[in-house]
Amino acid sequence: MANANMNCWPLIVIGGSSERGQETMGAFQEFPQVEACRLYSKFSVRPSSIEAIPSVIEKAVRSSIYGRPGACYIDIPADFVNLQVNVNSIKYVECCMPPPVSMAETSAVQMAASVIRNAKQPLLIIGKGAAYAHAEEGIRKLVEQCKLPFLPTPMGKGVLPDNHPNCVAAARSRALQFADVIVLFGARLNWILHFGLPPRYQPDVKFIQIDICAEELGNNVRPAVTLLGDINAVTKQLLEQFDKAPWQYPPGSKWWNTLREKMKSNEAASKELASKKSLPMNYYTVFYHVQEQLPKDCMVVSEGANTMDIGRTVLQNYLPRHRLDAGTFGTMGVGLGFAIAAAIVAKDRNPGQRVICVEGDSAFGFSGMEVETICRYNLPIVLLVVNNNGIYQGFDTDSWKEMLKFGDATAMAPPMCLLPNAHYEQVMTAFGGNGYFVQTPGELQESLRKSLADRTKPSLINIMIEPQSMRKAQDFHWLTRSNM
Amino acid sequence: MANANMNCWPLIVIGGSSERGQETMGAFQEFPQVEACRLYSKFSVRPSSIEAIPSVIEKAVRSSIYGRPGACYIDIPADFVNLQVNVNSIKYVECCMPPPVSMAETSAVQMAASVIRNAKQPLLIIGKGAAYAHAEEGIRKLVEQCKLPFLPTPMGKGVLPDNHPNCVAAARSRALQFADVIVLFGARLNWILHFGLPPRYQPDVKFIQIDICAEELGNNVRPAVTLLGDINAVTKQLLEQFDKAPWQYPPGSKWWNTLREKMKSNEAASKELASKKSLPMNYYTVFYHVQEQLPKDCMVVSEGANTMDIGRTVLQNYLPRHRLDAGTFGTMGVGLGFAIAAAIVAKDRNPGQRVICVEGDSAFGFSGMEVETICRYNLPIVLLVVNNNGIYQGFDTDSWKEMLKFGDATAMAPPMCLLPNAHYEQVMTAFGGNGYFVQTPGELQESLRKSLADRTKPSLINIMIEPQSMRKAQDFHWLTRSNM
Amino acid sequence: MANANMNCWPLIVIGGSSERGQETMGAFQEFPQVEACRLYSKFSVRPSSIEAIPSVIEKAVRSSIYGRPGACYIDIPADFVNLQVNVNSIKYVECCMPPPVSMAETSAVQMAASVIRNAKQPLLIIGKGAAYAHAEEGIRKLVEQCKLPFLPTPMGKGVLPDNHPNCVAAARSRALQFADVIVLFGARLNWILHFGLPPRYQPDVKFIQIDICAEELGNNVRPAVTLLGDINAVTKQLLEQFDKAPWQYPPGSKWWNTLREKMKSNEAASKELASKKSLPMNYYTVFYHVQEQLPKDCMVVSEGANTMDIGRTVLQNYLPRHRLDAGTFGTMGVGLGFAIAAAIVAKDRNPGQRVICVEGDSAFGFSGMEVETICRYNLPIVLLVVNNNGIYQGFDTDSWKEMLKFGDATAMAPPMCLLPNAHYEQVMTAFGGNGYFVQTPGELQESLRKSLADRTKPSLINIMIEPQSMRKAQDFHWLTRSNM
Amino acid sequence: MANANMNCWPLIVIGGSSERGQETMGAFQEFPQVEACRLYSKFSVRPSSIEAIPSVIEKAVRSSIYGRPGACYIDIPADFVNLQVNVNSIKYVECCMPPPVSMAETSAVQMAASVIRNAKQPLLIIGKGAAYAHAEEGIRKLVEQCKLPFLPTPMGKGVLPDNHPNCVAAARSRALQFADVIVLFGARLNWILHFGLPPRYQPDVKFIQIDICAEELGNNVRPAVTLLGDINAVTKQLLEQFDKAPWQYPPGSKWWNTLREKMKSNEAASKELASKKSLPMNYYTVFYHVQEQLPKDCMVVSEGANTMDIGRTVLQNYLPRHRLDAGTFGTMGVGLGFAIAAAIVAKDRNPGQRVICVEGDSAFGFSGMEVETICRYNLPIVLLVVNNNGIYQGFDTDSWKEMLKFGDATAMAPPMCLLPNAHYEQVMTAFGGNGYFVQTPGELQESLRKSLADRTKPSLINIMIEPQSMRKAQDFHWLTRSNM
Repeated sequence: MANANMNCWPLIVIGGSSERGQETMGAFQEFPQVEACRLYSKFSVRPSSIEAIPSVIEKAVRSSIYGRPGACYIDIPADFVNLQVNVNSIKYVECCMPPPVSMAETSAVQMAASVIRNAKQPLLIIGKGAAYAHAEEGIRKLVEQCKLPFLPTPMGKGVLPDNHPNCVAAARSRALQFADVIVLFGARLNWILHFGLPPRYQPDVKFIQIDICAEELGNNVRPAVTLLGDINAVTKQLLEQFDKAPWQYPPGSKWWNTLREKMKSNEAASKELASKKSLPMNYYTVFYHVQEQLPKDCMVVSEGANTMDIGRTVLQNYLPRHRLDAGTFGTMGVGLGFAIAAAIVAKDRNPGQRVICVEGDSAFGFSGMEVETICRYNLPIVLLVVNNNGIYQGFDTDSWKEMLKFGDATAMAPPMCLLPNAHYEQVMTAFGGNGYFVQTPGELQESLRKSLADRTKPSLINIMIEPQSMRKAQDFHWLTRSNM
Repeated sequence: MANANMNCWPLIVIGGSSERGQETMGAFQEFPQVEACRLYSKFSVRPSSIEAIPSVIEKAVRSSIYGRPGACYIDIPADFVNLQVNVNSIKYVECCMPPPVSMAETSAVQMAASVIRNAKQPLLIIGKGAAYAHAEEGIRKLVEQCKLPFLPTPMGKGVLPDNHPNCVAAARSRALQFADVIVLFGARLNWILHFGLPPRYQPDVKFIQIDICAEELGNNVRPAVTLLGDINAVTKQLLEQFDKAPWQYPPGSKWWNTLREKMKSNEAASKELASKKSLPMNYYTVFYHVQEQLPKDCMVVSEGANTMDIGRTVLQNYLPRHRLDAGTFGTMGVGLGFAIAAAIVAKDRNPGQRVICVEGDSAFGFSGMEVETICRYNLPIVLLVVNNNGIYQGFDTDSWKEMLKFGDATAMAPPMCLLPNAHYEQVMTAFGGNGYFVQTPGELQESLRKSLADRTKPSLINIMIEPQSMRKAQDFHWLTRSNM
Repeated sequence: MANANMNCWPLIVIGGSSERGQETMGAFQEFPQVEACRLYSKFSVRPSSIEAIPSVIEKAVRSSIYGRPGACYIDIPADFVNLQVNVNSIKYVECCMPPPVSMAETSAVQMAASVIRNAKQPLLIIGKGAAYAHAEEGIRKLVEQCKLPFLPTPMGKGVLPDNHPNCVAAARSRALQFADVIVLFGARLNWILHFGLPPRYQPDVKFIQIDICAEELGNNVRPAVTLLGDINAVTKQLLEQFDKAPWQYPPGSKWWNTLREKMKSNEAASKELASKKSLPMNYYTVFYHVQEQLPKDCMVVSEGANTMDIGRTVLQNYLPRHRLDAGTFGTMGVGLGFAIAAAIVAKDRNPGQRVICVEGDSAFGFSGMEVETICRYNLPIVLLVVNNNGIYQGFDTDSWKEMLKFGDATAMAPPMCLLPNAHYEQVMTAFGGNGYFVQTPGELQESLRKSLADRTKPSLINIMIEPQSMRKAQDFHWLTRSNM
Repeated sequence: MANANMNCWPLIVIGGSSERGQETMGAFQEFPQVEACRLYSKFSVRPSSIEAIPSVIEKAVRSSIYGRPGACYIDIPADFVNLQVNVNSIKYVECCMPPPVSMAETSAVQMAASVIRNAKQPLLIIGKGAAYAHAEEGIRKLVEQCKLPFLPTPMGKGVLPDNHPNCVAAARSRALQFADVIVLFGARLNWILHFGLPPRYQPDVKFIQIDICAEELGNNVRPAVTLLGDINAVTKQLLEQFDKAPWQYPPGSKWWNTLREKMKSNEAASKELASKKSLPMNYYTVFYHVQEQLPKDCMVVSEGANTMDIGRTVLQNYLPRHRLDAGTFGTMGVGLGFAIAAAIVAKDRNPGQRVICVEGDSAFGFSGMEVETICRYNLPIVLLVVNNNGIYQGFDTDSWKEMLKFGDATAMAPPMCLLPNAHYEQVMTAFGGNGYFVQTPGELQESLRKSLADRTKPSLINIMIEPQSMRKAQDFHWLTRSNM
């Protein structure tokens, strides 16, 4: 039912429930499903009759894409499947119009522009709201015209390319901590952004919040300016201000210098880690080699702990809406489902496009069996399992054997450790895809080359890394978990 | 915590729950209250500590007034009352800024103006969203400049005065049924507006929806144009269009003539009913006399079945946000609470202002004991109980006696009948207020005069009407219930 | 649908919801009512069709009375009212059988008997579960045969008469605090019984829990013995043990002496308060005079703070299931509804029976308008409003005037104070019942005499007491609130 | 915390939620988890402090095993992990006592015995309640002493051995349809037992319900007798009746003959299917060979559609509580978790015991990755994947290729088909276990022999069957789905 002209995709879950006539009797899988989905959905409903289905679907689609997007649930009782209905009694319902667009009030836009002009250490943060709103063109103009540094959130990556000269992701902590004015483009001040609070931010930092959701504005901090509206439309309103009275932030400012220096030193540290020759490999070495071969137009899907967090800093996105990761909720198990959905969209829209799905070994364990689906539909997916034998860290084979001397694994193995030397690639070959077990940079390069070259089959590369491999030291240890 | 500059009032319910340390033990009134309030609130939460209270209140206030307004619940466990906390550990949280204002996109506004210009039989409907948005000035300009007919919803009454020459409330059904273009200013197409569907509307009527809530747009009908944003701001955008290219709808059009004729005949029919000399009085006679003495600046509160529905058509509002009735949910029992809240606001803001609370006898029964509160705080309220001895209709004393011959009232009395000749005015005198029992127009006039003249005490006038008194015949019987 | 042979009454709430065909459209009072009632009901459901109504009602009735009793909710959508259905498609469903009876296992009963035999300071507590189970005969035999002291909970009063020589209610705190073995007959260790924990109990007190609900057993304390089953059946099992090997607790024991002494001194203190001649009266004076005239077979309904708590200690119950008070949840506003329900049952079952409803003035304010219903159906109810002008305490007229010198009542009056000199009796006369305003013992005696003598009309006696009147001093201040 | 003397295992889920101090701020995985678990749990709670944890765990354990057993949820906020607490402030809470036992009232037991004595065509149904209650000894005596035919429900299998001469499982539909008296031992009349209604039962069949849950009694049918209590205790009560006045159902009755004939013909039909030599194998051939080698004391776990349903009829249980299948809810994805839990219990209790987990290929797909856990802890599990390439039915390789000629699999493949020739055994070898791919009876026998012989490693046998293989024809097509 998605409208061809729509840029957004409704998220509707349709569930089957037990026959209405058997309710309260102990029917097969009888459960109050509409009620159970209430907390998870914008709209959760069972159509009261077959005739009501079209209108209920319209309402669900509309609720899903109008305002802040969200999932909706529609419950179809089992007896609907075989019910007969006069086709004339069905009222055809047209798909809803594309989401309505609203703008910020002009005075607020003027105030925002003025705050930006007066900033000493400005920063733009680009969130997934900007991606959903297709605001990339406007934000790029703003960044380039005003010479402003920017930072993407995990799902905001790619709205502007990660290799854009104004992207200061490599100095993320520094940028957050010392900015005096921060413009949020559809980014929430939640745990991912450390709630917008000191010590991760200056106590007097001025936030300019641009958001489609009124209730989000002012959450956790009192912003200097709030701009309620469609992020694309509001960005254009801001641009108008800077078109009327052109202004640019001095590229030679102390702030730019600070950020560039910090980026340089961080990138050097990463590069040093990446170039380590010791085996097993570390995260940086792995991602460095993956990045080298990453097709520019691929969809990147990722989940895991260190795998997702470190991978996000090294693997670059060049296009908007080309990255899916665990996001706001940090839910594990979503990666393969995301990859399958992305691949099905890609197959239609851009036959050459690849989906690169970068998984921690633990994350892969949640829904690894989806490789059957990937192989069944022969989807253009390359799966990378970055395998450290555990969550955050595991044991190598020798340590594992050592541990077992003291007793049975059910009693001895730490809960975050997984089996060493698991051959996840064989889960792929079991279903006819390509599987690679790699232990060295050379093997990794070779297997990536083959996987990307073979357009006839999906592949899985099981990449063995140092089980104790950690991320590089952080400047800042407060709330380390949330350094996405 | 309401900001002096704010035009809106947050609706926060603070509930006390049992001590945290006794949870799961069977504490006094132990219950999952936050969970129980979830379905009824925009935000339902228990602060996790005393220190968290200011920030939770800020969030509740903000959620209540940002976006579409709604109620919020805050749960305070009993042990918080006596807990001690270092005053320095409390983080003072400023009240949120006034709600952010958004506007519709310009192209949509232009399209809306064009649809209006091309309307043959246009109609504006003014909902409570327009009242909340303080859009009265803009809407008045639009109505007067473009000579357009308008209709208020129950809670939209008074945004423009009911006696405005362009108000076609007296031809409501006709106006809805034959309009070809309808502009909704913060009015939902719910049961009150018959869902926007035939036969109460033309099948091809073009709706222009102006609303602050994106998900409301397109609900039940596919609108011609949707304008998402603050209703006041969007109204001004529309006005700009008509300022740039002035236009007015011809006052001598056939549509205007049809509406005026229908209004005249409806008003004549009401007047005829109102002028009936037979006793007991009917609804129209009562409201006619009330309307004559209604202070122009009073707050009108009303609830009941016929009392609310008929009263709404006769009692006029001249000022925005000066009417409270059962509204969207049609909940009975809210009237006296509304009256008390309105009176407390009035006392502060406008010492001479009166609250006139028009209650059906059944509706009064839900919370009639609140007269104690009214008397305790000596609030400037005049309560009218329009008493037909029942819901929709009751028995007179003789019929009641007749019925009792056949058995005991618990067995015989219809469930919608109340006691005949109940002296509700004595419920007021019991607490020291003025009470009047009136049976004739003369008594009604006299008691109203006295009640309004006595600024030292609240009054209650118990107005006996014909127990079988009904509303006048309706053109249209489809969904009669919802003819608010 | 209640079975004539059943001793228990199902509690079913039937609610009307909006038409199914208008769901999701904004129907009149559209709300997920089944879901909203879930937390409050044992069973909450909407029948899926008219045909399903009989079976759903059977399920609700059965759920309500089988196992631990509770309320159930049935939702009837508006369109069911006018739907037609072939009468042959309705499957008639017989009412369920009376609740199944279960017994405790014999070894546990033996162990319980042995623990009782070895008790030094035994105590029986009779809860409302004993009343629901109709266990009065068995418990009386046990008490009398074994010469054991007992204590009723608020809703367990009357299972044995309050004036039974073995009732130690007048030494409640003492009895709880020093008992070494306590047998609970359908009484929960919740706030009313101070959770069964020190300092209100000995740390090593042995609880024998008799309950119909398995999950209740062991709650908050680890009992010495648990007896799961119907309380009546289990009591008989216990009696069998004491029939087989007769035993009685020595009536001259130190424990009995302690309890009797404490009772004597408490009763003397009460009597002293009751005999005070000063005016306004205090609680004890009032209840003393009420008790004198209380018909032995009346139903006593009560709610309030001090009114309910003190009244409960003075007003005696002689018959089981003849007292209704706010109980476990302590909910205010239930009194008049309870009185009406009790009166309707009484009218049928025992035409001479009276319902005496003892209300605090604040409690009366919650649903005082129900006097209209009482008068409409001419129910055999005598309402007593024990009026101290507030909750816990209020102001007298002079203090109130004094306070008002400092400002307006909305600003100055403490939140727990009500209007002084409120004439609640006029709320009764307003609807044709008898009303009395009493200030002295003589007036109270006279008005009670008249109210009980007049079988043609309900009465309300508004009893003015000292606004600062308090309960007598307590031995024990820990958790004073819960000394029900 | 499980008590060594307890026969039952509490089911407690402990979830971690976000830090309390970050609630409402957008914390990591912030969600109202206690509320979200409410519908799924008997008891769902967050301890209010660290000190409260022991008592909350005791309550959860007790709720889980007292009365009808069920799952409980305990929520631990993240900040509890690092909170420090004075060890003396923690109140140690003993584990609850074993569940209390209750019995039916004697008169009801007598009536039940009398109904059984007068039965013409009696049937006992043994449900999982009998297994939970450890009622095997009593039920065996009753069956053998009274010569009664019995039938187990899916989870009641093994309470008596499936090869018991009185087991009429092979004539299930016949037995249900013509019995005139049915005794339910902890079996619900839900979808699995066709709700106890015609046409699957005689309209006047007399049910004797034995259950621990009062509210279950009388559900869907009006039983002749209800026996509320612990199923083991009640069975013993019944036995006492038949001890006092011995009675047995005539083994040469027409009913026994009818049942035996039907069993013979059904078993012959199964045997014929099992002996088919055609390849690929069918379900019966597979299960016949599995059954031949099944260790008598193994735990059988099973899930799937046909795999579970047909497997249940062929694979025999000899011991109570040695079978776990999808049960009442029919939830897929539980099999491997069940197998792991069973294996961990087995390892402790009976080191030689094996868990045989029989999975449909689709069912395996839900949580197949759990083989990593199985291998990590080297659990004594033999996994059988009965592989028909789909749900209910799939395609063979040739049909699949044929289909693909018409288009892409994402467009063409029916939603219930899975990849043909999936090598699930390689999912096992990937983690170091044994894997077998078998296509013939000989290979199946051989692989089973090896798997059972190898006590050092888990095994997975991927058994290819005819993709269109169906169950044998059923007598009865009404509600075929529920023929468990």
